[in-house]
Amino acid sequence: MFEKTTRMNFLIDIYDSLLTEKQKSYVSLYYLEDLSLGEIAEEYEVSRQAVYDNIKRTEAVLENYEQKLGILKQYQAREDLVELLEKRLIEKNVVDNEVAGLLQQLKNMD
Amino acid sequence: MFEKTTRMNFLIDIYDSLLTEKQKSYVSLYYLEDLSLGEIAEEYEVSRQAVYDNIKRTEAVLENYEQKLGILKQYQAREDLVELLEKRLIEKNVVDNEVAGLLQQLKNMD
Repeated sequence: MFEKTTRMNFLIDIYDSLLTEKQKSYVSLYYLEDLSLGEIAEEYEVSRQAVYDNIKRTEAVLENYEQKLGILKQYQAREDLVELLEKRLIEKNVVDNEVAGLLQQLKNMD
Repeated sequence: MFEKTTRMNFLIDIYDSLLTEKQKSYVSLYYLEDLSLGEIAEEYEVSRQAVYDNIKRTEAVLENYEQKLGILKQYQAREDLVELLEKRLIEKNVVDNEVAGLLQQLKNMD
């Protein structure tokens, strides 16, 4: 299992287009830019508690989308599959540049 | 490009968890079960126009989710990549049962 920050980084990356501008800015500053609650509160001239509450709600929204759509879960399952396939193909000694490139592209896709 | 019915079948399959119960029933009956507008109207005791309007709005909702999240687009791009990889591996004569199974699983994933 991911640690929470890593998981939130993934969920924001996947689902940020479904968030409101305010939800997006607070969680992005907190998780992606690593600002503290106090720093975000200062920048937006709101209370630290208001920032905290908003981020908690947004986390729940993101987890709710993931529960419904499961894009992250599928992504992880696919990554495992591609890695297994890559391992087999390396054993068979058939990974030339083109095959390596295709495997890499499959791993990188959301 | 898909014809519309095929595209809608995919979009409903991917995003139906984000629809309301009513949106889900009308588009599912229309696109997945192939009922006519008149048949749906009769079943729900509403006008044919009401069913039509609801389905048009739901189509727009589905296309909006696809525009934001692009799951279908990624799925199609991935399918093309896996098919290209499969072609190369067949040329190299290295597709045994295990490799074929892994490729099939990669194609089947949403």
